[in-house]
Amino acid sequence: MSEVYATRRSRLRDRCQASGSATALISRPANVRYLAGAAPQGSVLLLGKTEDLLVCAGPLDDRPTEGRPVEALRIHALPGPGGDPAVAAADLAAAQGGVCLAVEEHHLTVARHRAIRSVVPRLRLADLGGAVEQLRVVKDEEEISCLRIGAEIADQALGELLESILVGRTERHLALELERRLVDHGADGPAFATSVATGPNAGRRAHRPTDRRVEEGDFLSVCLGATYRGYRCEIGRTFVIGTSPADWQIELYDLVFAAQRAGRESLAPGAAYRDVDRAARQVLDSAGYAQGLPPLTGHGVGLEIDEDPQLAPAAMGKLDACVPVTVEPGVHLPGRGGVRIDDTLVVRPEADGGPELLTITTKELLAL
Amino acid sequence: MSEVYATRRSRLRDRCQASGSATALISRPANVRYLAGAAPQGSVLLLGKTEDLLVCAGPLDDRPTEGRPVEALRIHALPGPGGDPAVAAADLAAAQGGVCLAVEEHHLTVARHRAIRSVVPRLRLADLGGAVEQLRVVKDEEEISCLRIGAEIADQALGELLESILVGRTERHLALELERRLVDHGADGPAFATSVATGPNAGRRAHRPTDRRVEEGDFLSVCLGATYRGYRCEIGRTFVIGTSPADWQIELYDLVFAAQRAGRESLAPGAAYRDVDRAARQVLDSAGYAQGLPPLTGHGVGLEIDEDPQLAPAAMGKLDACVPVTVEPGVHLPGRGGVRIDDTLVVRPEADGGPELLTITTKELLAL
Repeated sequence: MSEVYATRRSRLRDRCQASGSATALISRPANVRYLAGAAPQGSVLLLGKTEDLLVCAGPLDDRPTEGRPVEALRIHALPGPGGDPAVAAADLAAAQGGVCLAVEEHHLTVARHRAIRSVVPRLRLADLGGAVEQLRVVKDEEEISCLRIGAEIADQALGELLESILVGRTERHLALELERRLVDHGADGPAFATSVATGPNAGRRAHRPTDRRVEEGDFLSVCLGATYRGYRCEIGRTFVIGTSPADWQIELYDLVFAAQRAGRESLAPGAAYRDVDRAARQVLDSAGYAQGLPPLTGHGVGLEIDEDPQLAPAAMGKLDACVPVTVEPGVHLPGRGGVRIDDTLVVRPEADGGPELLTITTKELLAL
Repeated sequence: MSEVYATRRSRLRDRCQASGSATALISRPANVRYLAGAAPQGSVLLLGKTEDLLVCAGPLDDRPTEGRPVEALRIHALPGPGGDPAVAAADLAAAQGGVCLAVEEHHLTVARHRAIRSVVPRLRLADLGGAVEQLRVVKDEEEISCLRIGAEIADQALGELLESILVGRTERHLALELERRLVDHGADGPAFATSVATGPNAGRRAHRPTDRRVEEGDFLSVCLGATYRGYRCEIGRTFVIGTSPADWQIELYDLVFAAQRAGRESLAPGAAYRDVDRAARQVLDSAGYAQGLPPLTGHGVGLEIDEDPQLAPAAMGKLDACVPVTVEPGVHLPGRGGVRIDDTLVVRPEADGGPELLTITTKELLAL
């Protein structure tokens, strides 16, 4: 297991050296965790000239941790409070004879960057850019297995909720109930703030649960995910409350379902991000819902819930095998509600059976 | 109500002008919320030369919001996805005839700062520093009232938990139960990740709940808080499970209680931050626990759970009236457990009755 992290660091080191920096400072927590196996709060990773170091803000025992590194990566803990591990790491990089240090300019603040420059002026600072994020796009089977277990947990939590009485309960209570069930089934916690939207709120992306109660005839849309060993998945479903859905509800549901299926079916190694987005989007466009569509119809998932790639009209790039993504088109009609359907899938070649669906809760329109 | 925000912005503008910048770009979410009444995800606030603007990443309806601005602050929404509201705001600042724009260098990343410079090269960028954080230290009675309600909610949630059966339940379940009760009683949500620590974990600061079950004879330490209208409070208590505490438990509890009382009693307008810290710390020091004490014994609370001031040995500055702080010393004995006691109080002058205790759950050592 520990070799996984060493291999990842060695791939990153190759990239750094190719672009002229022998050493790199990784500060974005998910990137630290990806390369070190853990990211204690405030810690940074130094990819050093002679040795890699996890630099922590204090002794590990006293700090809230995201788990401990699972391997023999040496840990350098700052002795007292108030120090910035990024500055200490830059100092250590210079002590190892480093000349140029690549930093994550999209994560490091201007103030921390300035502090590094002033403490270690002889170190030339370069930009690592999204190099670690790019490494993270394609997952290994161990990572996919964590996502698969997370998806099973989310399916279980959702399934149990559907068996309970829903009418009269508030969005906030249903969301909390789902989060409790996620943990009951072994999740580290929710992957993101669980969204439960009823009636006119249904179908809104990332709707924050309110005190509105579920009523007969409502659309109910739910979006949740589990974090399992750090990996985050996502599932979204829309239901109708009551005995039978209204005609407009069936029509809208069928439309979003067709869009989501088109998106799912276009997932393949080599497919352009924008083509996957277009496949889902054009179904909604051609039904007259071009206005008000969300900016993306899906995105990568992993150690963060919103990773590369973005499945959006202007996105550049193509899917690889073993990239987990969401496909989540939706339509919201102001004042009436709407539908969202959201799955997490792993891109797989046709020869392996095509895209692997991780979130297997039915997408039939259930009347609850 | 809307005047509150306009007044805050006008105070900030005075500070900016005193330091040579007529305009400022506020990007840190809690600061945006403090000055605008709301901070939709990704939004920034422009304190402009002719007009203030809340610049949002997209139309408000489609975005997860932290509530809407409660006043007539004009909103500028970016038309499409992918744009950076900070860059757009800088552009608008220049369009208003701004020459120098103060930005939050402790929040803005190097990459965003560079993007602003390249899009609006004629604008000179300065550092706003922690100007808004400084304004936020002293609270008005409206803010304190939100903290007071949050503290009542946390007291209620904790009180209910104490009436239930604890032995055999896991730390994670107790933490979830507390968070559900917080929301039941009207909290927006937990103020931070609820910490429940049993047995050898008890007394660890910010301990992440595990699957360890509560056992007879354990110390049980709990730290939780409610967010109410954005304001975050904190309470921590330690209990003993079983009929009667062991002698070492009583001794350790009495010691931490004495330290916490000393800290509370030293809260007064004009008291140096470090003196409050020292009051609590020296009780533990002189009992032989100098090693392994946390870097601070308290901190400010408000729109964030960890705000200025820091009550720590090297902290510079003095308390003012109407500053809410925590007092939270603790001792953790590796392998055995420990005690933390944590209150949120508001600094008040002697003439007004001294520090106002917001978290009123008993600090007697309860055997549950």
